[in-house]
Amino acid sequence: MNAEIIAVGSELLLGQIANTNAKFISSQLSELGINVYYHSVIGDNGGRLKKAIEIAESRADLIIFSGGLGPTKDDLTKETIAEHLNVPLVFDEKALETIEKFFTNQGRPLTENNRKQALVLQGSEVLVNHHGLAPGMLLQKGGRTYILLPGPPKELEPMFQFEVKPKLASLISKGGIILSHVLRFYGIGEAELETKIQHILDAQSNPTIAPLASDGEVTLRITAKADSKAEAWELINEKKREILSIVGKYNYGVDDDTLASKAVEMLLQNKLTISAAESLTAGLFQSELAEIPGVSGTLVGGMVTYTEEAKIQQLGIPKELLNQYGIVSSECAASMARNVRKKFGTDIGIGLTGAAGPEPHDGEPAGTIWIGIAIGEDVVTRKLQLSGLRNTNRLRTVKYTLSYLIRLLEEKGYQKV
Amino acid sequence: MNAEIIAVGSELLLGQIANTNAKFISSQLSELGINVYYHSVIGDNGGRLKKAIEIAESRADLIIFSGGLGPTKDDLTKETIAEHLNVPLVFDEKALETIEKFFTNQGRPLTENNRKQALVLQGSEVLVNHHGLAPGMLLQKGGRTYILLPGPPKELEPMFQFEVKPKLASLISKGGIILSHVLRFYGIGEAELETKIQHILDAQSNPTIAPLASDGEVTLRITAKADSKAEAWELINEKKREILSIVGKYNYGVDDDTLASKAVEMLLQNKLTISAAESLTAGLFQSELAEIPGVSGTLVGGMVTYTEEAKIQQLGIPKELLNQYGIVSSECAASMARNVRKKFGTDIGIGLTGAAGPEPHDGEPAGTIWIGIAIGEDVVTRKLQLSGLRNTNRLRTVKYTLSYLIRLLEEKGYQKV
Repeated sequence: MNAEIIAVGSELLLGQIANTNAKFISSQLSELGINVYYHSVIGDNGGRLKKAIEIAESRADLIIFSGGLGPTKDDLTKETIAEHLNVPLVFDEKALETIEKFFTNQGRPLTENNRKQALVLQGSEVLVNHHGLAPGMLLQKGGRTYILLPGPPKELEPMFQFEVKPKLASLISKGGIILSHVLRFYGIGEAELETKIQHILDAQSNPTIAPLASDGEVTLRITAKADSKAEAWELINEKKREILSIVGKYNYGVDDDTLASKAVEMLLQNKLTISAAESLTAGLFQSELAEIPGVSGTLVGGMVTYTEEAKIQQLGIPKELLNQYGIVSSECAASMARNVRKKFGTDIGIGLTGAAGPEPHDGEPAGTIWIGIAIGEDVVTRKLQLSGLRNTNRLRTVKYTLSYLIRLLEEKGYQKV
Repeated sequence: MNAEIIAVGSELLLGQIANTNAKFISSQLSELGINVYYHSVIGDNGGRLKKAIEIAESRADLIIFSGGLGPTKDDLTKETIAEHLNVPLVFDEKALETIEKFFTNQGRPLTENNRKQALVLQGSEVLVNHHGLAPGMLLQKGGRTYILLPGPPKELEPMFQFEVKPKLASLISKGGIILSHVLRFYGIGEAELETKIQHILDAQSNPTIAPLASDGEVTLRITAKADSKAEAWELINEKKREILSIVGKYNYGVDDDTLASKAVEMLLQNKLTISAAESLTAGLFQSELAEIPGVSGTLVGGMVTYTEEAKIQQLGIPKELLNQYGIVSSECAASMARNVRKKFGTDIGIGLTGAAGPEPHDGEPAGTIWIGIAIGEDVVTRKLQLSGLRNTNRLRTVKYTLSYLIRLLEEKGYQKV
């Protein structure tokens, strides 16, 4: 199966955004063992799009479109394909219902343009959009597979992962199946991890192992081809054991786990409550925890003490301590963790202080961060020296704190999940 | 002059990197007033590259290649073009000198592969590479212009800016420039906004107007072609006035503004301090403000009161109030806003409570959110009924609160920035 990815949108040709959808789709297809031979980008122009489709049909049997499914009149991907393939557009009742519900809830008028988003190619499998209003489509015609996806990555990526990928896998596997399992690591760089398991990477065939780094995390995707699920899992688990025997201590989770979800699971599992006092992260740590449903079983709350006054008046950090050691100090982080824990009556208290940047803060250079973690009466602190931009530093601080917390709890003998 | 950009490199088709070169080149070309109608990406494969060149020649008179000029044997862009155009490759003495000097300085042996990088298309203008060893080329043949650029952005971008751009500018018979200006809207859907200004969109020619929606925001990009910057701005501003006279009340900023940056600017400008008490957003509102450098001039801090106990004990919300009206209520949001403002001694207090989802909360369905804003002694509240996923709802709540705050301050006569 050979694929071409056609991205539709004048904003790409004007250089306003990069074609990250093609990158994402390509990496997903390569995991499935599907060759991608061409990417094409076309503007919001029916005539040029039609020509591009004809060219794609001459060189690919899987054609994936991104963009042009929206409500506006320069969104014409499905209209052009419908005309080109001579397939009528029909209303998808479920999509229409979702759209109408959305506008009723918003108390906004429903325009004809919005209803247009519920039109799908007759005979296509409709791909549900959980993050937007325009459904995707998978149509098989004339020995080719046409897949239409919405342009916004937030809508396209989950739709591809959960709707398209399984369908493609079963299309190509001819009885056999393809399974992927992701190992997630934190606290180790991509290059260092690769070096440690170089011999495994060099020897790979089935399963294949694909390292990927993003946001300070590293993932290894293990992909196995086999005749049965059981066989595929056997291959994957064998390789997984081999890898974790070397770099297991950096592994925090698998597949869709996040540092926040693992931390929350572990806190709930061990019936521990948590609170936090945040300066440079200003609520980002608590907000990351709150992304996980059910977090109310462990997150009581906390404080954002952004100014020195707030630290002193709201959190009771002694002014003398701040004068003696400074705001960006182990002592301040420890005191914040200790005091917020007492104030909120939780088992665990987190204290985060530092210089996010771009400016130095209280005499400390940008990127200097102190993390304090109070578990019961014990308080530990750790220093980070980051070199990113302001908001990268803030996010890294949160992620590092989560992985540090997980490891501390393990060391204290709490059950890992 | 119509352009096509052809990126060569299997790493793009494997999804290892995004085609940022096409984005860069496109934005540069649009400044020159050159239309880009197509981007294409081809792997390191001579046969497929040759076919792609033929297609490009059928639809563009300016063809820009990026990548495949390196020393390895899968670098075959110039070889393929040389064969296709029947133009021999000859050594460029200056490039060869640079390469030999480089390896002598490095004390490394000079291989044939490295010498190969100094080969250029006969009769082409050689584009000096100040950041690498592979020179670029500009060749005019058969009424078309072929430009070959190295793949690494660090080499490609300066080469384009300093070598290619001036040459292209002089090639274009009547110079002329393109200017873009982005208007940002919140609180109105893409389709609704488009319906309101349909007559303007239908009548558009120069400037053009392109709507784009993402994350609940809508932008309009106004792009004007003119002989001078001043003329272009005149065209843009005229259209801008026309648009804002209709949907101005939804416009919060332009170009790279964000809701958070506008809110922070306005608070700083008017010397107002702010604090927040957050339940469902759990710190996300304060964290969004803290993304803006200099926020410490207005953000004092605040609280995350996730549980009912935290709301009562930490924020002093009367238990009776929660029993009578519920946690997801106008009264609770107002009380949170009022109390956090008093507690932190700020001019403005924000209170956010609601059911983020997926579960109902305190009897209210997922997506029911109450926003409270206290400005001085005045407290106002507003209800949102969202239908997204948990974290979409949390982010929308924050964005809506920011736009609501900006509008309230305007209504109270505070200076807008």
